[in-house]
This record gives sequence, C-alpha cells and structure tokens, in this order.
Amino acid sequence: MKILALDTSSQAASCCLLEDERPVGLFYMDAKLTHSQTILPMVEQVLKACQQKLEDVDLFAVSNGPGSFTGLRIGTAAVKGMAHGLGKPCVGLSTLEGLAYNLVGHSGIVCAVMDARCNQVYTALFDLDNDLRRITEDMAISLEELQDILKKQEKDVILVGDGAVLCYNSIKEQENCRVRLAPAHQRLQNAYSVGLAVLRGHREEAVQARELAPSYLRLPQAQRELLKKQQIEK
Amino acid sequence: MKILALDTSSQAASCCLLEDERPVGLFYMDAKLTHSQTILPMVEQVLKACQQKLEDVDLFAVSNGPGSFTGLRIGTAAVKGMAHGLGKPCVGLSTLEGLAYNLVGHSGIVCAVMDARCNQVYTALFDLDNDLRRITEDMAISLEELQDILKKQEKDVILVGDGAVLCYNSIKEQENCRVRLAPAHQRLQNAYSVGLAVLRGHREEAVQARELAPSYLRLPQAQRELLKKQQIEK
Repeated sequence: MKILALDTSSQAASCCLLEDERPVGLFYMDAKLTHSQTILPMVEQVLKACQQKLEDVDLFAVSNGPGSFTGLRIGTAAVKGMAHGLGKPCVGLSTLEGLAYNLVGHSGIVCAVMDARCNQVYTALFDLDNDLRRITEDMAISLEELQDILKKQEKDVILVGDGAVLCYNSIKEQENCRVRLAPAHQRLQNAYSVGLAVLRGHREEAVQARELAPSYLRLPQAQRELLKKQQIEK
Repeated sequence: MKILALDTSSQAASCCLLEDERPVGLFYMDAKLTHSQTILPMVEQVLKACQQKLEDVDLFAVSNGPGSFTGLRIGTAAVKGMAHGLGKPCVGLSTLEGLAYNLVGHSGIVCAVMDARCNQVYTALFDLDNDLRRITEDMAISLEELQDILKKQEKDVILVGDGAVLCYNSIKEQENCRVRLAPAHQRLQNAYSVGLAVLRGHREEAVQARELAPSYLRLPQAQRELLKKQQIEK
C-alpha cells in the first residue's frame, strides 16, 4: 500500500511517500518559510525523485491537529485537494499521536507536548511498550496540570514535541523525576511518523476528501476573544 | 555552522543540510534508482527549498565507506566536486559510524552491520552510553566471527544497517540473546546522522577536496580476483 503523508502543523513541514512501513521518499524542511508555498512543491519533488505519480497513491494522510491553525489548514487543504481530485481516501491523524510515533523502538511512556501559548500545552500520553496504545485523549491543559499527570506515571517518560523542553525544564529538578527529552532530531513532527501511525492504527478511519477537516482542539484566538467580548456585553 | 551531508553508500540515498545539530532540510530516497542521477538534483532541491546557496555551506560531509563501491564513488566524487569548486573543507566519515548515529538517544551498545556478500559483513560496535564511543574498528569479518563478538558484550545490543536482519536471524535463538533490531525506519543510512557524527566528533579531520577518497575496507571484487589469479600463476 502506498501512503502519501503530510505534516504542516508546526514550524517544520514534511512530506513522505511510504510503501507499507518503508519510507520510499522523504522531504523534511525546517527553514521558517511559508508552508503554503513549500508543501506542494515538496510533494512534487518526492514523487518525481521516486518516479511515482500522484495517481499511484492509495491513501493520503495528514496531521490535522492540534497545531498552528494556519499550518493545519494548509496541510488539510492540500490533502483534500489531492484526494478529491483523484477520488482517493484520506485520514486526518492527531498531531500528538504522529509525534509519539517518532519514538517507536523506545520503551516506557511517550508524552507528546506542543506549546499552545497562553500558558497552555496540547498534550497526550501513549504507552510505547504496548504498540503505542493511547493512554489519554488529546488535551489542552496548563503546564501545572501536565506536571501532575507526569508525576503519576509508573514508567519512564520521554517528552517529544515543540513543548518538550518547556515541560522538561519545569519538572526536571523535582524528586524522582523519571522524565527525559527525545533526541533533538526526533523531537519535531515528521510526515513519516504520520504515515506509519495511520498504517498501523487508523486505516479504518479513512474518509472522503469532503469529510476531512482540521481538529483545533481549542477555539482559534479570534473566536475566543469574540466569545469573551460577547459574554462581557451580555 | 552549516554542514551539507550526503550518503550514497547503499540502496538509499540522502542529503541533509544541518545548522549545527538541527536538520534544516532533508531529502531521503529509497527507490532503487541510480545515485549518480539523483544525488545532485536532491542537493539542489534541499538548498532551494531552504532558500540557501551552496556558498553558504561551511563544511561538506559524506559517508566514504564501507559500502557499495559505485555508491561510495558517487557520493565522494559529488562532495569532492562541490568542496573543490568552493574551496571548502570536507570530511569522509565511516559509513558504520554514521549508521550508529541513527540510534542516538538509545542506551546500550549499537552494532552497525552491512551485508558485504561473500559470507562477510562490514561491522563496528559503539557504546551508546558514552557519547557513542567507538568500541571496535571497522571490520570485514564473517557472520560467525561477529556472533562471537556479540556474545561477549555485557550490555544490550541494537543492530542497525542492511545486514542487521541477517545477523539478528542468525543469533536470536541463542541462549541469553541480548540483541535486538533497530526500528525499521532507522535501520538504513541517513545523511542527517552523517552530519551529526561529523559535527560531534570529526570536525578536526576536515581535509581539502583532493585528499578525500573512498575507504573500501576490502579490495573490490575485480582486484581480489586478479590477486587470486596472480597467486595461482606464481
């Protein structure tokens, strides 16, 4: 099965063509450029380099949230367009679960943490020893709430994601801390992990292009402010 | 420091631009195509995607052996050309050490194994717990000799490289086997690891382009056969 996976949920963007679990072509970029300008040329280059056509892809995968709102819209829109044009199925995967798949091969627990600003993090925990079984839902919580969750874990915890360092620095000096950082090059989103996660556990969730949508987990700031304003006015 | 790293030592080819330890752009391909046709366009695409110029690169890195003789010549020649044209330094890194760097963040021992055909493997061991300290030299030995070495290790061993499965299958049923396979997507050469290895431990070995050469570890088959023939004739 050929999967084309995209990730544009953070500052890095990547695109990977998988033939089952084997990465056939991967283009990863973390150069602070606009994903809307880079992601489709990256897809084109990967397919061209591997002498494959878009028509050869069986399934499209994209991390659809949480993450940068604009980034999520770009990735989801790109996949919707390709999947719609070809009448192929697509899967939207939790960005946090994609991050957790970076750590396949390690043991213990993986905690994906993304900086959600406003003193919050997006986070979810997974058990690496049990085929990456999900332990918690995707959550938008405070750093203090995450610390409480981490203290209760009975296995070593690996932190991954762009909020990993923030979380690690806040907890590392605490007694009996069993938390460590993922290696730097495995700490950010990667389209290969998105494809692998979908292949191993989310193929059944494939939908038609028109059903795919970003999953923000929290309302965009503009809507939060509007709601707040409306409540004050009431 | 900006490092451009290349790997064409096996069936996969890859190119990575690093800004210190951060991967800025990575293009990886495992599509069974000719490296001589793919590697320079890959370099061009990575630089273009990251809006960088070849002139911005401070140091070139390439895995220069052991590996596919043709592959090593292609990668080394590409780096020699670029480094010579720009008057920039370059480093040739042991392919086995580059492979070991795929496992940064794990603990125990990593054993890089490449299938050298003719019932031999190219191999070397490194200690993951001590900043990837080299335990053995690069060797071309039989699978049986490697088994003896692995049995003597007092830590868990992770196998990486295109000979990892071959080695694992030959040893996994033995008593007290403490050997396991690296995750599939970290099992083959990757230019990021080449760049990271050079950055962490081999910057001092930088040479001028004309001094860079492949390091085959074993004579090419044609030369081995010629020598054998000459000995018979004597």
